[in-house]
Amino acid sequence: MNHFFHVRAVHSSGARLGVLQTKHGSLHTPFFMPIATRGAVKTLSNIELNDIQNHVDSTTDPIVLSNTYHLYLKPGLDVLRVSGGLHQFMNWKGTILTDSGGFQIFSLAHLRKLSSDGVEFQSHIDGSTHVITPEKSMEIQSVIGSDIWMAFDYFPGYPATREESEHSVALTTAWAKRCKQWFDEYLSQKEVGTHQLFSIVQGATFEDLRKQSAQELIALDCNGYAIGGLAVGEPVEKMYNAIETVVPVLPPDKPRYLMGVGLPEQILEAVKRGVDMFDCVIPTRNARHGSLFIHEENSSHLIDASLSSVHYTRINMKAERYSKDTLPIDAHCTCVACVSGFSRAYLRHLFSINEPLAARLATIHNSTFYLTLMHEIRQHIRCVA
Amino acid sequence: MNHFFHVRAVHSSGARLGVLQTKHGSLHTPFFMPIATRGAVKTLSNIELNDIQNHVDSTTDPIVLSNTYHLYLKPGLDVLRVSGGLHQFMNWKGTILTDSGGFQIFSLAHLRKLSSDGVEFQSHIDGSTHVITPEKSMEIQSVIGSDIWMAFDYFPGYPATREESEHSVALTTAWAKRCKQWFDEYLSQKEVGTHQLFSIVQGATFEDLRKQSAQELIALDCNGYAIGGLAVGEPVEKMYNAIETVVPVLPPDKPRYLMGVGLPEQILEAVKRGVDMFDCVIPTRNARHGSLFIHEENSSHLIDASLSSVHYTRINMKAERYSKDTLPIDAHCTCVACVSGFSRAYLRHLFSINEPLAARLATIHNSTFYLTLMHEIRQHIRCVA
Repeated sequence: MNHFFHVRAVHSSGARLGVLQTKHGSLHTPFFMPIATRGAVKTLSNIELNDIQNHVDSTTDPIVLSNTYHLYLKPGLDVLRVSGGLHQFMNWKGTILTDSGGFQIFSLAHLRKLSSDGVEFQSHIDGSTHVITPEKSMEIQSVIGSDIWMAFDYFPGYPATREESEHSVALTTAWAKRCKQWFDEYLSQKEVGTHQLFSIVQGATFEDLRKQSAQELIALDCNGYAIGGLAVGEPVEKMYNAIETVVPVLPPDKPRYLMGVGLPEQILEAVKRGVDMFDCVIPTRNARHGSLFIHEENSSHLIDASLSSVHYTRINMKAERYSKDTLPIDAHCTCVACVSGFSRAYLRHLFSINEPLAARLATIHNSTFYLTLMHEIRQHIRCVA
Repeated sequence: MNHFFHVRAVHSSGARLGVLQTKHGSLHTPFFMPIATRGAVKTLSNIELNDIQNHVDSTTDPIVLSNTYHLYLKPGLDVLRVSGGLHQFMNWKGTILTDSGGFQIFSLAHLRKLSSDGVEFQSHIDGSTHVITPEKSMEIQSVIGSDIWMAFDYFPGYPATREESEHSVALTTAWAKRCKQWFDEYLSQKEVGTHQLFSIVQGATFEDLRKQSAQELIALDCNGYAIGGLAVGEPVEKMYNAIETVVPVLPPDKPRYLMGVGLPEQILEAVKRGVDMFDCVIPTRNARHGSLFIHEENSSHLIDASLSSVHYTRINMKAERYSKDTLPIDAHCTCVACVSGFSRAYLRHLFSINEPLAARLATIHNSTFYLTLMHEIRQHIRCVA
């Protein structure tokens, strides 16, 4: 029984429609979380971010993902404490999910020393030495004050041998237990429903390890389960296979979160395999580089009712071919960047002079695209199920 | 008689209150023009820019200055033509003033060859060779389609000898004549009131040359007169002296525009010497570097009724001292950056991670500060005169 999550409909494809309740909102699943790495979705203000989410679907509440590792290093816990937590610091009234810091430590930081206790590493910013244990990850997330916390996990990198993957699963389980213990104790002094703890299934592309990892974490009765260590370079079939392996093991009444995925068609495929939550840098990072997701020319919808495929095109807004194109970015989009009179020619000009407004308009557009994709997916689950 | 400009009040100090009419608005003078160098005020969208101007004083219409030299090089005339001019290209419904290109050519471009006909130079972007004559400057501004055009002038650099300054005045007068001729011919095929031509008084810090320059240009009966070649490194007293020399020569029924000035106290001093229009990169450029203009702690007003001085402080938002400061930027400011819940600590953090939102919030604030300064100046001229 999970008081924070209810599945409302299941599509014939396996896609689920649900509601996730946090202290800061009711969120309809499946949903996508824009990434506010260090307390800001790059180029956007909280006001724009909220407007985008509200514009696409005002019936569901907004959410962002923020990075524990990055926030711990900058602005640091002292500043976050004085500021009353991340919600107040970044002035965000919606839900915040924080990752555990594990993925960044094992992919960004330098000179890592791994032990069963935790990991010592050097900051990628200034080389300073830090130790993060499962308990420390929980403490950091308590200072951040996010609504959804992720248990500290060990990502072995890609590709990982079977031995490394076994080690990753064992450590991740042991650390998740310690996280759960810290979390339960912390929560016992708090109002019910203040925070939720998700843990992260590892196991690389080894089916038995994925199942083992999931089963061990389920025993901890977390509020939700993430599938981690994917979208790191493996073939897309391996990713789908891992999802298909893990999802049937996970409890049907808990939300399932696929971390770091992905392209629109990958999100759709994961939704059809029963995934409820997503985050990815693709829409925002691509936007900053001028790569925009738009509707196919003759289609005002991204998804058909049978959820069979996503219809979209990517355009490179920096290309010379758009220098005299007076059309808006996407004729079928109603975001501020598309309906306020900004032409492709103007956007291309802004990119060519490195004007930050270019990246901002592009980020508004791509974020709207991703949220619209999720909205359409939800609409079709609602209709057909 | 000038149908585009009316002086409504003159303060005992010499400050004037007026209205400048363009095809795109009624503008109360004295006013300040934010700089949209290449079709965008750096970090801001046209929507924000309009909101800022409207928020500070909804009784006067918005204006920006854009740079002929920069727009000519990028996006170039072909793109501007296809886009229907700069208003449509940058999606700006307010007034646009364009400078002549002269100042940039003589301060930014390389390998200049000056002749009585015009100037050949190499682009500071790609080294390509271009020739700008007075006629070409007019043609470019006609393609841009700005409301107020500046006659092509020759700025001799600072410091300039008497001989160089004489040459500057002579060429500027000769070129202004050719501009006026081109402009009158062009305008004869247009609706009345579509465009206005201002010319630029040169003469460095030589009083007799300043007077001569003003008198020669007045004979051309332009729609307004600018004082150019100041705020280029000369002592501030020399600047005030040049204004005091030129203003009495200028016709009282034409607007007076002091180019490139300046700090708040310099603007106030110039207003008291009868200047009506200003532009300067200070508020926006300082903002991008974290230097913010704020009210003095105990004063909700920037200017006293006697227009004696400006009460303000500058703070460096990047300084460590603000890292835990949960106050807004400026307690007496009502701009979006100050009233939406953004703390100094958050802004400092955004600067420290090079997040473009930092420069944007700072630009919104500093632009609001400058427009508020002008609004308060106008209010006091209205009250006391």
